[in-house]
Parts: sequence; structure tokens; C-alpha cells
Amino acid sequence: MNFNKEYESRISYIESILNQYLPKQEGYQKIIMEAMEYSLMAGGKRLRPMLMWESYRLFGGQSKVIEPFMAAIEMIHTYSLVHDDLPAMDNDEYRRGRKTTHVVYGEDMGILAGDALLNYAFETACRAFEMEPDNSRRIGAALKILAGKAGIYGMIGGQVVDVKESGNNLSGEMLDFIYRLKTSALIESSMMTGAVLAGADEKDISKIEQIARRIGLAFQIQDDILDVTSTTEVLGKPVHSDEKNEKTTYVTWKGLEESKKDVARMTEEAVEELHAFKPADGFLEELLKRLVYREK
Amino acid sequence: MNFNKEYESRISYIESILNQYLPKQEGYQKIIMEAMEYSLMAGGKRLRPMLMWESYRLFGGQSKVIEPFMAAIEMIHTYSLVHDDLPAMDNDEYRRGRKTTHVVYGEDMGILAGDALLNYAFETACRAFEMEPDNSRRIGAALKILAGKAGIYGMIGGQVVDVKESGNNLSGEMLDFIYRLKTSALIESSMMTGAVLAGADEKDISKIEQIARRIGLAFQIQDDILDVTSTTEVLGKPVHSDEKNEKTTYVTWKGLEESKKDVARMTEEAVEELHAFKPADGFLEELLKRLVYREK
Repeated sequence: MNFNKEYESRISYIESILNQYLPKQEGYQKIIMEAMEYSLMAGGKRLRPMLMWESYRLFGGQSKVIEPFMAAIEMIHTYSLVHDDLPAMDNDEYRRGRKTTHVVYGEDMGILAGDALLNYAFETACRAFEMEPDNSRRIGAALKILAGKAGIYGMIGGQVVDVKESGNNLSGEMLDFIYRLKTSALIESSMMTGAVLAGADEKDISKIEQIARRIGLAFQIQDDILDVTSTTEVLGKPVHSDEKNEKTTYVTWKGLEESKKDVARMTEEAVEELHAFKPADGFLEELLKRLVYREK
Repeated sequence: MNFNKEYESRISYIESILNQYLPKQEGYQKIIMEAMEYSLMAGGKRLRPMLMWESYRLFGGQSKVIEPFMAAIEMIHTYSLVHDDLPAMDNDEYRRGRKTTHVVYGEDMGILAGDALLNYAFETACRAFEMEPDNSRRIGAALKILAGKAGIYGMIGGQVVDVKESGNNLSGEMLDFIYRLKTSALIESSMMTGAVLAGADEKDISKIEQIARRIGLAFQIQDDILDVTSTTEVLGKPVHSDEKNEKTTYVTWKGLEESKKDVARMTEEAVEELHAFKPADGFLEELLKRLVYREK
């Protein structure tokens, strides 16, 4: 398997799904469709839909019913970035080398575009009911996870604590809590909904949740590392922002070397546990390893 | 039937459901649960869950599966108010006689509380799948309506045009579009999900949508009328705000007398059409009539 070629082809597949599920730009409210596309099609690793698809295939899933969910998880991830960038939040003017949504469309439309993407994520996921009405029970179970992991016991909960504790010195326990909710929750959601839609049993879904939790944590720690070791040009956003904002991060907590070791260890553990599910090819394993050594 | 007593008892029933479905206030992210409760339990007419329950009973619904949907629609309505009040939107400091959510909890938490309520609405509605797994197909259909009517082709779409066209002179056609999306859509959602969950057929669901559209429009026109004719004390929010913001309203478009006549006519039509469904008591009819003559 040529990983890079395979990776690019999966990115293309995911972006074709996103384009397919994005609303047509028409009507008096056209500007909001434009803002949704602007933020959703700004590039990015498409990690969450990619992991969802991998998890779906790992459990033998073969239909297109996964696709609206792949679009939905990326919409949820994107809305969280749009709202996170708002002046009252992180007040960021650039993301992925482009002006942020509220800078281009105004603060009011930034708020509404985030709302629209979150709401449209659920509208999109609900399309699965029409595609496979006989699978409604399974789709309902996947929707419940999608909603739960994005909310106050998942991503939003992590955001809330992150914002509330901003500038405070955090304990390791609280940092762990924030990372698990803010970052791992959507990775867990991706891999769990993939497994659920493919018909995995509860025991396996719970194992996948644990694996995804570790992947999310490793991913977030790598983010902290890159904020210290990378450059603005490579990242497409300002580096040393954590230091500037006096944030407690995994790096300030455990130091750079220990953080790197932890990322490597967590990734190895996740890969190890995934072996038990006998993946058809080595893509997922390679993807996880590259996430550890990624430079942006 | 003593309408006032019946009305109060239904408000109590709805508020007990809201309390039941509100998240416990605990964990590091407790502040967001507080902000959600603050905004959701601020009083209000509870019109949407009330209409949902009426519509559910109209089609013979008798189980508790409607309750998470009743909570969900009120959460969606409330999140839209919380975001609408933000400084970058209408910048309102008071609502229902109390300080708005962002004034009490800060602008960042105002944004997150709105996000949390919208997301939690879907988490809450998804509880219906556990309550009646055999009804998953019907619940999926109701969820699709709930999501669709709240989004860019419904409430958010109306908000977008309202915000974008703020200060402009609007055509009657555009005003109609805004009202249908901004206000009617959630009323349609309420009555349609009630009908769907009770097992109504497509023809009847479509009729209910038309009735709800008219009720929503009459309700919004009455809002425009009260902004001209009421007082801040009675409304619990500033009057003459439309004039101050140079807004085109139904009253500036058609004049006060014509607007009053239209509200009465639309309500009569809605009541007339509801008769075809043989309501068990006169509550819904009386409720609609009182909405026309309401003073706040």
C-alpha cells in the first residue's frame, strides 16, 4: 500500500461527501450557505470522518449509510472552530492560513454560521433514516452517540472548562478532563458511530471508545508540542500561543521530552489494541503513527 | 373546562418535563448547566411544547415518548433567544424582565450556553429511541423534522435574513419569508413532530404544517402589534424597539388596524381547519384565540 496516495484518495472521497451534503447556495439566506462552505471546505486533515470510515469498515460496514454521519462529524468539528475563533472566545483572525469565518462574514454571521453547521450536522445525519429505514434502530443509537459526545458531557463541556479556567494553573487531573472532553470526545464519537452503524456489539464499541480516547489524547498532546516546536508558516496559525495565553498544557505540565514519549506510548497502545480487530490493511495503523510524527 | 386553570396545569406539566430533562448541575463544567437552567427556566408561554402536546393528542398519541421532544423544542427556542441577545446580534440586556444569559454569565458562556442548549435538544430528543426502540422509524422521522425546521431552511434561515436585512426597507414578500422561517418554522416543527410521533399520515401532517404556519404568522404579527401598543412593564422587554431599529414590520407594512384584522382572520382559519381533526376538548381553540388577544 502506498500510504500517501491512499491518504490523498481518502481525503478526496471525504471532501466529495462534504460537497455532496453541503446545502445549495440559494435563497434569501444564501450568505449562510456561503459561510458554511467557507469554513467547512477550508482544508484540514479530515481526521474524524477518516477514523469513522476506518472504524465502520473494521466491523464490516459496506453501505453508504455511513456517509451522512461522516459529513455530520466534520460539520460539528468545524462549527466548534468557528465559534472558538469568535472575538468573545479566542479572538483568532487566522486559521489554516485563511481569515476566520467571522472576519470574512462579520461577527453576527460567524455566530449564525456556527449554529447553522451544528444544526445541519443533525439534519445531515438524519438523512440516514431515509437511506435505510429498516436500520432506524441502529441509526438512532449512532445519533445518540453523535449528539452526546458533542455536548456538555463531551466537546462543549471541555470547551467550557477550558474557557473558564483560562489563565489559571491547572492540575494534571483537570487538564486530562479538558483534553478528554474537548478533543477525545469527537474522536470517540467518530469511531463509535462507525462501529455502531456497522453493527458492532456493545463490548467492542466500548473497546473502540477506549482506543479512540487514547488517540484523541495523543493527538491533543502533539498539538501542544507543535505549538512549542513548529513555525507559523508550517502550522498556518500562530505558534507559542499557549505561552502567550499563559496556558497550562501537557508540555508545561510534563515537559517536552516526556510529552513526546507519552504521545508515542499512547499511539503504540492504540495500534496494539486495534490489532485485535484484524484490520483489512495497514492504513489505520500507519495513519495513527503519522499523527505522532506530524508537523502540522 | 376552566381554561385558565387548565392552562396553568399544562404550564406546570411542561416545566416539570423541562426540569426532568435538564442536566444535573455537577462536574468541572457545572457553570454551563447553570446557564442552561437560567435561560430555560426563565418563564415564558411554553407555547411550542404546549402545541406539540396538543397535536400529539389530536392524533391519539398517549405515551411519554412525546416528552423528550417537548423538552427539545423548548431548548431549541431558548438557545435561539440566548444567541439572539448577544452583543454582536441584538445586544439585549433584558428578557422576560431578567438579565440576559450573557450579561449574567459573560459573553463567552453566552455563546457556549446557546450551543449547549441546541446540542442538548438533540441529545434529549434521542432519549426517545431508548424509551420506545420499536418506534425508531417514527422517532427518526420526527427528529428529521425537528432538525430541519430549526436550521437554515427554518429558524436559522429566518434569523440570517433578518440580521442581514436589518435597517433595510423590506418587501412584503421578504417579510413574509422571514416570519415564516423565523417564527412559523418552530411552530410547524412542534405540531408536525407531535402528529408524526402519534402516527398521523402524510396528508394530515401536511395539513397540520399549513395550520401551524398560519398560527406562527399570526403570533409574529401580534408581536409586532404589541411592540407598538404595549408597555415595557407588561412585556418585560423594551417596547418601540422595532421603530428604534428602523425595522420593517407587519405594522409598518400594513398599518395597525389591518394587522389586527389579519391576525384575527388567520387565527379563525386555523381554528376552522383544526375542527376537521375533532379535538377532544376546546383547549387548543381557546389557546389560539387567546394568543390573538394576548397582551404580552
